Amino acid sequence: MKNSANAALDGRSRTKVAVIGASGYVGEELVRLLLQHPYTNLAALTSRQFAGKTLAEIFPRFSNRGKASELRFIRPDAAQLAQKAGIIFLALPHGFAAELAEPLWQAGAKIVDLSADFRIKDPKIYKEFYGNDHAAPELLGKAVYGLPEINRGKISRAKLVACPGCYPTSILLPLLPLVREGVVDLASVVVTSLSGVTGAGRKVDADYLFAECNESLRPYGVPKHRHLSEIEEQLSIFAEKKITIQFTPHLVPVNRGIITTIHVNLSKKMDATAIASVYKKVYSAEPFVRLLGDERFPDTKNVTGTNFIDIAWRLDPRTGRVILMSAIDNIMKGASGQAIQCFNAMCGYPETAGLQIP
Amino acid sequence: MKNSANAALDGRSRTKVAVIGASGYVGEELVRLLLQHPYTNLAALTSRQFAGKTLAEIFPRFSNRGKASELRFIRPDAAQLAQKAGIIFLALPHGFAAELAEPLWQAGAKIVDLSADFRIKDPKIYKEFYGNDHAAPELLGKAVYGLPEINRGKISRAKLVACPGCYPTSILLPLLPLVREGVVDLASVVVTSLSGVTGAGRKVDADYLFAECNESLRPYGVPKHRHLSEIEEQLSIFAEKKITIQFTPHLVPVNRGIITTIHVNLSKKMDATAIASVYKKVYSAEPFVRLLGDERFPDTKNVTGTNFIDIAWRLDPRTGRVILMSAIDNIMKGASGQAIQCFNAMCGYPETAGLQIP
Amino acid sequence: MKNSANAALDGRSRTKVAVIGASGYVGEELVRLLLQHPYTNLAALTSRQFAGKTLAEIFPRFSNRGKASELRFIRPDAAQLAQKAGIIFLALPHGFAAELAEPLWQAGAKIVDLSADFRIKDPKIYKEFYGNDHAAPELLGKAVYGLPEINRGKISRAKLVACPGCYPTSILLPLLPLVREGVVDLASVVVTSLSGVTGAGRKVDADYLFAECNESLRPYGVPKHRHLSEIEEQLSIFAEKKITIQFTPHLVPVNRGIITTIHVNLSKKMDATAIASVYKKVYSAEPFVRLLGDERFPDTKNVTGTNFIDIAWRLDPRTGRVILMSAIDNIMKGASGQAIQCFNAMCGYPETAGLQIP
Amino acid sequence: MKNSANAALDGRSRTKVAVIGASGYVGEELVRLLLQHPYTNLAALTSRQFAGKTLAEIFPRFSNRGKASELRFIRPDAAQLAQKAGIIFLALPHGFAAELAEPLWQAGAKIVDLSADFRIKDPKIYKEFYGNDHAAPELLGKAVYGLPEINRGKISRAKLVACPGCYPTSILLPLLPLVREGVVDLASVVVTSLSGVTGAGRKVDADYLFAECNESLRPYGVPKHRHLSEIEEQLSIFAEKKITIQFTPHLVPVNRGIITTIHVNLSKKMDATAIASVYKKVYSAEPFVRLLGDERFPDTKNVTGTNFIDIAWRLDPRTGRVILMSAIDNIMKGASGQAIQCFNAMCGYPETAGLQIP
Repeated sequence: MKNSANAALDGRSRTKVAVIGASGYVGEELVRLLLQHPYTNLAALTSRQFAGKTLAEIFPRFSNRGKASELRFIRPDAAQLAQKAGIIFLALPHGFAAELAEPLWQAGAKIVDLSADFRIKDPKIYKEFYGNDHAAPELLGKAVYGLPEINRGKISRAKLVACPGCYPTSILLPLLPLVREGVVDLASVVVTSLSGVTGAGRKVDADYLFAECNESLRPYGVPKHRHLSEIEEQLSIFAEKKITIQFTPHLVPVNRGIITTIHVNLSKKMDATAIASVYKKVYSAEPFVRLLGDERFPDTKNVTGTNFIDIAWRLDPRTGRVILMSAIDNIMKGASGQAIQCFNAMCGYPETAGLQIP
Repeated sequence: MKNSANAALDGRSRTKVAVIGASGYVGEELVRLLLQHPYTNLAALTSRQFAGKTLAEIFPRFSNRGKASELRFIRPDAAQLAQKAGIIFLALPHGFAAELAEPLWQAGAKIVDLSADFRIKDPKIYKEFYGNDHAAPELLGKAVYGLPEINRGKISRAKLVACPGCYPTSILLPLLPLVREGVVDLASVVVTSLSGVTGAGRKVDADYLFAECNESLRPYGVPKHRHLSEIEEQLSIFAEKKITIQFTPHLVPVNRGIITTIHVNLSKKMDATAIASVYKKVYSAEPFVRLLGDERFPDTKNVTGTNFIDIAWRLDPRTGRVILMSAIDNIMKGASGQAIQCFNAMCGYPETAGLQIP
Repeated sequence: MKNSANAALDGRSRTKVAVIGASGYVGEELVRLLLQHPYTNLAALTSRQFAGKTLAEIFPRFSNRGKASELRFIRPDAAQLAQKAGIIFLALPHGFAAELAEPLWQAGAKIVDLSADFRIKDPKIYKEFYGNDHAAPELLGKAVYGLPEINRGKISRAKLVACPGCYPTSILLPLLPLVREGVVDLASVVVTSLSGVTGAGRKVDADYLFAECNESLRPYGVPKHRHLSEIEEQLSIFAEKKITIQFTPHLVPVNRGIITTIHVNLSKKMDATAIASVYKKVYSAEPFVRLLGDERFPDTKNVTGTNFIDIAWRLDPRTGRVILMSAIDNIMKGASGQAIQCFNAMCGYPETAGLQIP
Repeated sequence: MKNSANAALDGRSRTKVAVIGASGYVGEELVRLLLQHPYTNLAALTSRQFAGKTLAEIFPRFSNRGKASELRFIRPDAAQLAQKAGIIFLALPHGFAAELAEPLWQAGAKIVDLSADFRIKDPKIYKEFYGNDHAAPELLGKAVYGLPEINRGKISRAKLVACPGCYPTSILLPLLPLVREGVVDLASVVVTSLSGVTGAGRKVDADYLFAECNESLRPYGVPKHRHLSEIEEQLSIFAEKKITIQFTPHLVPVNRGIITTIHVNLSKKMDATAIASVYKKVYSAEPFVRLLGDERFPDTKNVTGTNFIDIAWRLDPRTGRVILMSAIDNIMKGASGQAIQCFNAMCGYPETAGLQIP
């Protein structure tokens, strides 16, 4: 792949990109991926807090890594950024992303947004879940939900891609095939997730101190976590009716990784073979979906540092339920890796470019 | 409490006890609790593997702790143990416990069993879930399920107490009050649990090596974990009909602690006040149950090292479900601490004796 | 012991105590110990930040624990506190402790200070290491360094006890016996320590976030950590000459625990037996010192939650050096537990009272 | 670099390699690196235990990764392997490596050995430290110690490379420049290291269970860890006299990473500038050595997953000592990554090929 990629590259120039808000865990990983991406040229990165500093000064992991140790953070300026880069990644908190997206859009830049701001079509739902009025509601209609396995075509033509949240990625990819198949009792969906602490971002808050998280397990955000808004909107699109689900996230002491378990009643009898064939049909050609079937279990340690989602399932003959289980790296497939997948689709690059599958 | 306890002690002698199979995590903690218990005299402890060694040689935590550093493991011999001690704790793997319980019972000893062997009344269910024929089926009818908050009276009169499993404790205590109240749609129960690695015992298996568990999250035992057998039996007793539930356990990288979340549909409308009053009615006088209500969340770090169970709940107006959440220390309230609670009930001691509530 | 302790208690009333600055990890543990101490009455606890709240609201571990859930934080007021309590524990940051100690001393209260403020006799050294002028230099002469194994007699007569730092405790207890014996090449002392993250206190700082500490190992504070000031002062007292040592601390991802390794050249030939006899002579009657000798290794998991220090040693025939190794719980023997030991000595209580050795 | 590498590749074929003993942590990582290496063709991998299974069956991380999921373990057969591959990596326990090296050498294969078997020139020293007689002493003279920063030229011409141990790598790279400069008091070297648990290999032993390592810190292997043999031999070569050092390793609860701190007395006065210039002279052109200087500290989290060694130093004016500090990933720069560096040198590839420096 690398060869053909490089060969492909010979005939054209690298795409110039910029990252806005590059100082969180998601931004840092995005920068790392872009630096080693065979077809990009990281032209600018911004951080109000760190303007003037080099990437290596702020993130010592990057020191001595060629360009990585020379790149300096600049202050965000939409017009200037749109000139420097053809595609802009926004790795900002929600609210801030929409504010900056507006002038970038006006300036003609393509945008890959990793915040929640463009994931939901309905500004009322956005306000219900995020509390603030949407800063750029007129752009909501332009945004494509950036789940490549589901929306690949639209993403490739999009000018504004809203990368899904980490929990939604871990839930939608295992659940959508059965929902689209029309075999799920839509009122029965109960989802539990476990997330590593980077899921909270690099937030300096007592709740996320080492000695508060280590040797600690805790549910939170019950019963109405913000990510429900996009999960339910996407499910409803595919079910063609309004779906409400139960979602219980937990914070657990790992740096990275999400395990999601989904419990559904089937509205129609299916055996193990039928379930397996639904998943194979939908995902067997997907480079980043690994089907573990009904004998193996997902484990975050098999996906951390990668863009894979591992999906397993069990049919419980005692209850008639199907239990779906998935594992992702919340920072990779749940954020920055998926953003690169979208970027590749937008640019016509191989979808795995820069995402290291040997 | 300590004063009255000691005063009470003045009028009678300490109860002689023995621990069989004291070399696992549960046995080690049980020994620790018994050594500091104001009314016990730890007369013997057994381990085939460590016979002849002192407690301090095997568990360095115990060195320099008076009697703890002198006690030596002996080989298990039922007749001899029944002579040495009035109450015998069995901290053996399932199967082995039933085998030893038989001669101990014959010799007239009272038994507190921490294995699964006497938790289930029906030997067919036992075989279905544990694989082997029950070694002492005639004792099953004598055993009392050792959940003091539910069975206190029976435990106080029992000669054979079967201490509940760790997951069952974390599930039954939050769930039973609503089941007894008759407000749960019994087909709707979906339970997820997260357990620390000591839950697997001191098993020397590659799956439990540090580098395999650290930075790892994984579901396992889906869809038919062994503990379902006792959970469903107990629920069925209180519901007066057969209940089948969904249960998905996960292994997470902490030493100790279980978080359980239970999702149920109500069969009858209830508001938050009504739910709270069910729990207050049942548990407000319980020394080891802490009700967190519908605003706080349980966190294992608040219960590890203690015998408490913390219980919280949420009513989800969007789905009509109630979400119950609990936290316990799997080795304490989930095993050794609960065994001491049962022992205290059997002996007429204050239920908190030896369990440190300042 | 408990019996004789309680018997002793019958003839007198409990000692009223107060804790100032009870909201950090050290303060929280101190409160826990005082609540279960058989001879104390925790009369007041202060926190500017949490004034008006109950202990249970701030530290959920304490809820449902009798008095612990009713006690409310008040604002610190020296005159009022001195009236309420005969002995006051200061669990404040350095600088703040000296400021409050002054009026407490004037009001006639006895003081157990857990900060660094009264550990060093020379205010110039204090300023050199801590940066600020000492707020109560006239009290420095009154303070006794609270290492009971070394200063038991003085502590029992003291009105102001300065509890040693966590690193100094882990270094001085293994090192002083050889220094007093006069067999150490005083210029050769090289010390390395590993500390858990609670050693940094409950400081809300990005450096101590879970994802920054987990899977991270780092030296810090090299070459002149603040604790060197008290370590060197104490060593110099016993050596009767000025000693300067090398000290390299590291931050490692555990909640609690310090491992210290000390490398010294001997100024006089000694064999393994001679070394062992030095330690046995000094420590064999000490309730909280466990000598592991020259075959076992200390491990923090054997001391966390206890007030023990485990000490091991090796004589290296290849280099002629002695390697001393110790393990403590930084919050217990390194802070709050040791403070209770000092308190017991000041009050004439058994030294292990409230420190749970079964 | 990637471009020139690929360009270079155009003119020649990939090097066929085999990995013997690919089922440990080091072997697994080596396979991962070889699979993504631009100039290799992984022709065979062996494991007695897993013969017949695919890589993906044994290591789920590798599933769905093209060739990685198809490769099957075979039984080791020297003649057959030497035919299949021009360079053979041995990732076997010591003792086993030497046994297999002999027939591979006879068959004309080049060998990169990751065990301890060829690191030491003197078979008596080998026996002293490893307990067994050396199985192929006649090959000891052929082996080159595989520390590329020191031995690059010899490695490039070698037929048998002995990759250094993880601790020796972390010690020699910071220490050798000062030793070569002749400024170290050679009797004064005191080294302490902290290692993650993968350093013990995938050994199924109770000491390495999660609950035994988590929340545990412990020194071990004092005073004569096996790695001393190669550290002292290499130092002695450069000092041109026999050196004996002090070395105290510790096991700490991280998966990967080593922190080493080295304390040395200078035999000649040097200031901070002089020290910095020694390191810059030796290492400023090295792709995998990052000099942090005398203001920053190494942290394993900046090197895990990479082949970098981060080196910092401090001059302590109080004691006259220099403190050297380094961080590496024990599996990468301490084992598999360094093996790839050596392989690249042997083949004339860019030294960073397959080791991802963007």
